[in-house]
Amino acid sequence: MVSAVDDMSQAPLVLLSGGGGGALLAAILSKCTVQRPVIVVTNTGDDFEHLGLLICPDTDSVLYATSGKLDRAKGWGREGESWQVLDAIQAMAGPSWFQLGDKDLALHLMRAEQLRDGSDLAGVTQLLSERLGVPEGMIVVPATEQSVRTRVVTEEGELAFQEYFVGRRCEPALRDVVYEGIEGASPSPSMLAALDTCIDGPVDVVLGPSNPFLSLCPILDIPGMLSELRKRARRVVAISPIIGGRALKGPAAKIMIELGLPASAPAWTQWVKQRYPGFVDTWVWDEMDRGLIATLSEPHDVRVTDTVMSKPGVSAAFAQWLLEVCSVAP
Amino acid sequence: MVSAVDDMSQAPLVLLSGGGGGALLAAILSKCTVQRPVIVVTNTGDDFEHLGLLICPDTDSVLYATSGKLDRAKGWGREGESWQVLDAIQAMAGPSWFQLGDKDLALHLMRAEQLRDGSDLAGVTQLLSERLGVPEGMIVVPATEQSVRTRVVTEEGELAFQEYFVGRRCEPALRDVVYEGIEGASPSPSMLAALDTCIDGPVDVVLGPSNPFLSLCPILDIPGMLSELRKRARRVVAISPIIGGRALKGPAAKIMIELGLPASAPAWTQWVKQRYPGFVDTWVWDEMDRGLIATLSEPHDVRVTDTVMSKPGVSAAFAQWLLEVCSVAP
Repeated sequence: MVSAVDDMSQAPLVLLSGGGGGALLAAILSKCTVQRPVIVVTNTGDDFEHLGLLICPDTDSVLYATSGKLDRAKGWGREGESWQVLDAIQAMAGPSWFQLGDKDLALHLMRAEQLRDGSDLAGVTQLLSERLGVPEGMIVVPATEQSVRTRVVTEEGELAFQEYFVGRRCEPALRDVVYEGIEGASPSPSMLAALDTCIDGPVDVVLGPSNPFLSLCPILDIPGMLSELRKRARRVVAISPIIGGRALKGPAAKIMIELGLPASAPAWTQWVKQRYPGFVDTWVWDEMDRGLIATLSEPHDVRVTDTVMSKPGVSAAFAQWLLEVCSVAP
Repeated sequence: MVSAVDDMSQAPLVLLSGGGGGALLAAILSKCTVQRPVIVVTNTGDDFEHLGLLICPDTDSVLYATSGKLDRAKGWGREGESWQVLDAIQAMAGPSWFQLGDKDLALHLMRAEQLRDGSDLAGVTQLLSERLGVPEGMIVVPATEQSVRTRVVTEEGELAFQEYFVGRRCEPALRDVVYEGIEGASPSPSMLAALDTCIDGPVDVVLGPSNPFLSLCPILDIPGMLSELRKRARRVVAISPIIGGRALKGPAAKIMIELGLPASAPAWTQWVKQRYPGFVDTWVWDEMDRGLIATLSEPHDVRVTDTVMSKPGVSAAFAQWLLEVCSVAP
C-alpha cells in the first residue's frame, strides 16, 4: 500500500491518464503541486510481460514525464536513452521487436525485483517515483492491482495491445476493444486511500486528453471505479483528445472513424456521455473547436481554451486555466 | 537435450572447466576442433539468481572465450562491454553490487526467456553457443541440470559463493567449501549423450587449470560423475593451476594455504589424488615446477611444459602438446 502525500490539506486533483497527452498533462501539473496535490491514476491495460519483466508503458510514461526524464521528441521512453542491450539481443537473434532501452530496462528490472519481494504495483510505483524524482505532492498510482489486458478486435482478428500498437503500428482497422480480466479487477486500494487522505472535502477528477478506447475505458470500466470516483468528486472534467478533427498523437481519431463515429470533439463528448452517463460535469475542448459547440444536440458545460500543450507558453497557461476551472464547484 | 556434434567420428576431448584458466584453455581448443571435437563441461556451482535472472558465470566465461567475445584484459565478461543499465540501476539506488554489463545482461535475459519456455540448461547453452558463434565441433554443456550452489565456510561464517567472490573479494580465510544440492544432482544427460556420440572409442578427459575447490569439485562431486567419466575415458589428464607456488589468477593458492596445504604443484597433485583416487592418469605441471617432481613420495606420470597460456606463442603450442599427450593411451 502506498502511503499518501503527508499533508493533503488541499483536496487533490485526480488525473486519469494514459501514456501520451495524459502524461504531458501530468508533467505540467507536477509543477503545480504547491497549489494542489495531484494524484495521477494510470492505465494498466497496456501492461504486458516481455522477457519475463512486467512492462507498464502508461505508468512509466507518466513517471518519466513527471520526473523530467521523458524523451519529449519521441513522446515515450527515457531521455538520453541508449540501446546496448537491445542491440546485443538482436545480435543473438533474440526477441527484439519491443524497443527496450537500457535505462528503461533498468526500471523494469527494479520493478520485477520489488514485485518478487512482495511489493504490490502501487508500492513499486511509489518507490520508482521517489527514485526517479517525481515531485513531492504528486502520487502516481496504477488504476488497479489486478491484471487488466487490453485486446483489440480488428478486421484481421483479435490482437494483444502491444501486437496491435507496436507490432502492427495500429494499422488493422479496429472493430472492438476488450479489457481482459477487467470483470475481476477493482479500484486500487492505494488509490482510494490516497483520495481519502485529503481532509478538505471532495476532489476534482480530470480525464486527461488520452485515447478513450485504449487508455481511459480500461480505467473507468474497472467495476466500482466510476462510483468510487464520482462519490468523492466535486467536479469531473474531461479533456478532448480530438482537436480540429485529429488526435495530436496516436490513433484516437482513426479508431473513432473505424468505430463509425465522426472524429470530432462533439462526437467524442457524446460517446463518453453515452458510455458513462452522468459522470462528466465539464468538457474541455480546444479553442479550435469552439464553433462546434452549437452542433451539440443538448446543452453541455463545454469550456474552450488552447489545449495544445506542446506549443510554447501554452502548457503552464493551460495548467493554471484547468486549476481555475477546478477551483469552484460546478 | 542437446544434439551432439553431428560427426564425432573422432573421439572428443572432454574439458572440465571453471571460468578462468579453463575458459582460456577452452578458447585455445576451440581452434583445434578440426583435429578433435571438444566437449567443455562447465561448473555450475557459481550459478546464482540476480534480478530474477539465472547467471552462470563459468559457463558464460567459456561461451565468451570460445566465441572470441571474452574481455581478455579483465578475464571475465564481454569485450567492448558497456554499463548503461547498471548505471541506471545505480542512479535509482537499485541492486548494483554485481557488475552486470549490457551485453552480458542481454545473454541473461535470453537465457531466462528460454528457460521459461521449457528449455533445459544444456539446451539454452547450446542455443547461446550457436548465437554467439562458438565454433562447430565444440559443445559447451553445464555439468548438471540440477541446482548445485557452492557455499564457502570462512572464519567469518558461511557465505554464498558470489558474496565471497565478488562481495568480499575472497578475503575471508576459507575453512571449508560445500556444494549445496549436489547430493541430489546427476551428470547432465546431454553431456553423457554428447560423450556417447563418438564412434571411435573412448574419450580423453582433461581437468582444466581451474580452481580445484571452487570449479572442479562441484563438477566431480556430482554423484555418478566420476564413474561416468572414468568408464568412457582412455586417459584423464589434470593440469595444475599452481605454477611456481602461485595461481596465475584467482584464489587457488590462497585457499590451499588456508586449508593447511602447501601452495605447490605436488601438494595439488596429492590433494586431487587423495580426493579422487585412481581417477587421474597424467599430471601436467608447468616447466617451472620440473624440479619438484623428485619431491613426490611415489611415482606419478607427470608431464611438464610451458602452461602459461597468456604468454605470446605459448597457447597454440600448449594445445598441440596437450593433443599429443592425449593421442596415445596411458
